[in-house]
Amino acid sequence: MSPQPSLDAVLNRIDADLPQALERLMDLLRIPSISTDAAFKADCARAADWLAADLTALGFEAASRPTPGHPMVVGHGGTGDKHLLFYGHYDVQPVDPLVLWDRDPFDPIIQDTPKGRVIRGRGTSDDKGQLMTFIEACRAWKAVHGTLPGRVTIFLEGEEESGSPSLIPFMQQNAAELTADIALICDTGLHEDTIPAITTMLRGLVAEEFTIHAADKDLHSGMYGGLAANPIRVLSRVLANLHDDQGRITIPGFYDQVTELPEAIRAQWQSLSFDHAKFLGDVGLSVPAGEQDRTPLEMIWSRPTAEVNGIWGGYTGDGFKTVLPAQAHAKISFRLVGDQDPDQIRAIFRAWVKDQLPADCRAEFHLDGGAGASVMAISNPAFEAARAALTEEWGLPAAYVGSGGSIPIAGLFKSVLGMDAMLIGFARDDDLIHSPNEKYDLECFHKGIRSWARILARLA
Amino acid sequence: MSPQPSLDAVLNRIDADLPQALERLMDLLRIPSISTDAAFKADCARAADWLAADLTALGFEAASRPTPGHPMVVGHGGTGDKHLLFYGHYDVQPVDPLVLWDRDPFDPIIQDTPKGRVIRGRGTSDDKGQLMTFIEACRAWKAVHGTLPGRVTIFLEGEEESGSPSLIPFMQQNAAELTADIALICDTGLHEDTIPAITTMLRGLVAEEFTIHAADKDLHSGMYGGLAANPIRVLSRVLANLHDDQGRITIPGFYDQVTELPEAIRAQWQSLSFDHAKFLGDVGLSVPAGEQDRTPLEMIWSRPTAEVNGIWGGYTGDGFKTVLPAQAHAKISFRLVGDQDPDQIRAIFRAWVKDQLPADCRAEFHLDGGAGASVMAISNPAFEAARAALTEEWGLPAAYVGSGGSIPIAGLFKSVLGMDAMLIGFARDDDLIHSPNEKYDLECFHKGIRSWARILARLA
Repeated sequence: MSPQPSLDAVLNRIDADLPQALERLMDLLRIPSISTDAAFKADCARAADWLAADLTALGFEAASRPTPGHPMVVGHGGTGDKHLLFYGHYDVQPVDPLVLWDRDPFDPIIQDTPKGRVIRGRGTSDDKGQLMTFIEACRAWKAVHGTLPGRVTIFLEGEEESGSPSLIPFMQQNAAELTADIALICDTGLHEDTIPAITTMLRGLVAEEFTIHAADKDLHSGMYGGLAANPIRVLSRVLANLHDDQGRITIPGFYDQVTELPEAIRAQWQSLSFDHAKFLGDVGLSVPAGEQDRTPLEMIWSRPTAEVNGIWGGYTGDGFKTVLPAQAHAKISFRLVGDQDPDQIRAIFRAWVKDQLPADCRAEFHLDGGAGASVMAISNPAFEAARAALTEEWGLPAAYVGSGGSIPIAGLFKSVLGMDAMLIGFARDDDLIHSPNEKYDLECFHKGIRSWARILARLA
Repeated sequence: MSPQPSLDAVLNRIDADLPQALERLMDLLRIPSISTDAAFKADCARAADWLAADLTALGFEAASRPTPGHPMVVGHGGTGDKHLLFYGHYDVQPVDPLVLWDRDPFDPIIQDTPKGRVIRGRGTSDDKGQLMTFIEACRAWKAVHGTLPGRVTIFLEGEEESGSPSLIPFMQQNAAELTADIALICDTGLHEDTIPAITTMLRGLVAEEFTIHAADKDLHSGMYGGLAANPIRVLSRVLANLHDDQGRITIPGFYDQVTELPEAIRAQWQSLSFDHAKFLGDVGLSVPAGEQDRTPLEMIWSRPTAEVNGIWGGYTGDGFKTVLPAQAHAKISFRLVGDQDPDQIRAIFRAWVKDQLPADCRAEFHLDGGAGASVMAISNPAFEAARAALTEEWGLPAAYVGSGGSIPIAGLFKSVLGMDAMLIGFARDDDLIHSPNEKYDLECFHKGIRSWARILARLA
């Protein structure tokens, strides 16, 4: 299992080229490609163009490809019997609340911290820094050997943070060129900051925005307060009823398609000795707040959840306004596991909300779409090969882990294109993805590139 | 009780001068004097200057007087043994949501509607249109007789919609010049759109803004959802617990100082035949949503309430962000009756919130101040005199009514300056005060001016 000479040269090249790789990443980070906000549409296109140009410079046959939403970037390079597809996304989350950032989220910087050097800025970890680890590994192979170790397709999306509306149609319309032997996805993390990990279980996601309507106009709470229905109070009741005192979701039928964790996986997870006190302590918390009869790791990897992600209604500005509003709004998301069906969960949630509305109130629902949970095919030998490569690079046995997040693409490669997918990433739990002051550790970027070089050597 | 010749001439003058009176009101309405928003500070000063100049032109010794907040306008005019003080406020509510206005809130217009001609714009009814009814009555007296019928002080505030922080100190510092035989306040309405009314019971108000804190930063709901405390869920539970299923407030001790309505007043209110179906129907509602064992009129005039006036937390922009926020916020107001003490209500509310917080959550409270309920001294003969004047003008017996709104000034004239206050106003229930498309009926403006002319004749 010792590295081949050809790989050694590639790893050396990666080490030597790191400053230039960082400069390229900084260029990409400076483009505010926030996909969920229409104001940044041109920036998303610019990020796609930047990536297509970079891949072209690398010898890929690459282009930014239009969709009804933000463009996809597809590049083909190398030759060989084995065809690997790499997936990442160039869009990023919104940056609000901007006031909590220590600096401009799109003016990235390298900073020294007590825990090492970090790259700071929106998208550093999710997912621009991660997707560039693979591109830089390809660049080093190309620089050293003049070619890639096999046939590689790079497929980059610009709508991952906004529900991927164009993804399935694009995959269907371009199935022939996108179907490979296996898909490699870099949008996950290390386990406990140090253990290289392949994520084999992912929760699904249903996102829902809804509005409770009461009066047909805002009212004065002095004139109407105590007599007229208050939609904020109605919404609060609905949201308060969503969980019982034990942290279980109360929607009838919600748990019907939830499968229990196999004993073997449960045992392996216990051996991972997840330090939930540290995981929570890092963000100022101490007590697991979920289902009281579940372990913390089960709560985030294998149990379904319902969380309120946003709420608003009435007067929210400075000072006070004694208004009794006409409407109140919430954004809510469900993480799904097992065989929970997104459409069915959405349907029973909506029915459950409507059942609770008092007279004079009605609910309006705004979002659609969703994805079920995914379990990866670890019987595919590529998994053990990648695991060996990761173990080699990081010096610790790589683990198969679950993830609380939802990465629908992993399941879509199977359901749309019939290919297995493997999730490998180098993020750390304190990367603050989706939050102010997002960062990516320089060590993760560097060893991430080296990891992909090793994986390419074994798989291609 | 027939009008004196001197009054007839004044009433005729009011009728003839109505177009000019409307033009003056339009000028004042165009000034966006939103007191709660610091961005409009200069506009508040401009409104005060406009009023001081108008009173000076009328022969008052008038000035805009500085305070730590927005200025007060004080004007003295006329002579005589009887000293009347008139109070109104020139500041207005914020205009959001602006999208629900049919036109610029500060570009007022006169419109024909199926229910008659209306003046449309922010502040038309609350309170610029109302305060101008008194000034125009003075103007007509002055034009016809060269003088006012008695000694009149006009006292106009610019912070009524933002908690009146400067009011008590200003009253204390200027007690000698502000203390009169009685205070006349024009910030209330007709009963059931047609019956002239003197408001003799007002609810008090405690306003509270609070924040629930959980994690020390926003979290990714995929990574932390189901494990970390969600402050929106905690806030929803607290707000849902505020009322029981019968609509009663659950804070221990909340009702301790609430007095029951005297039987005589209850009987008079029943004779008013309040049409709650129409009152609710006008705003798209049908069912009284308050305490189930109370009549609708009790709910809004004589019972304490707790209403949520605003709520916000997490991601509230377009699209979706799977964030688990660090904080959630609410603005809540209590209407007080009887002997409920604002400070005590605030204290028991805060303790009650803190009692409900789970581990890892804390609450922070931001506002202060408040006012108890007021009951007017209807034994003062000025009340019966004003009632006769109103009956004469409107052709229907004027009523003593309660009000759900809080007008702390009414109680302050008694507690700070030792004088009785009388609340007379001409607003209608469909004026949309504090709401988009606020209006004031032209008939109310016109007959309001005539009403004050009659009241001045009887009181001064």
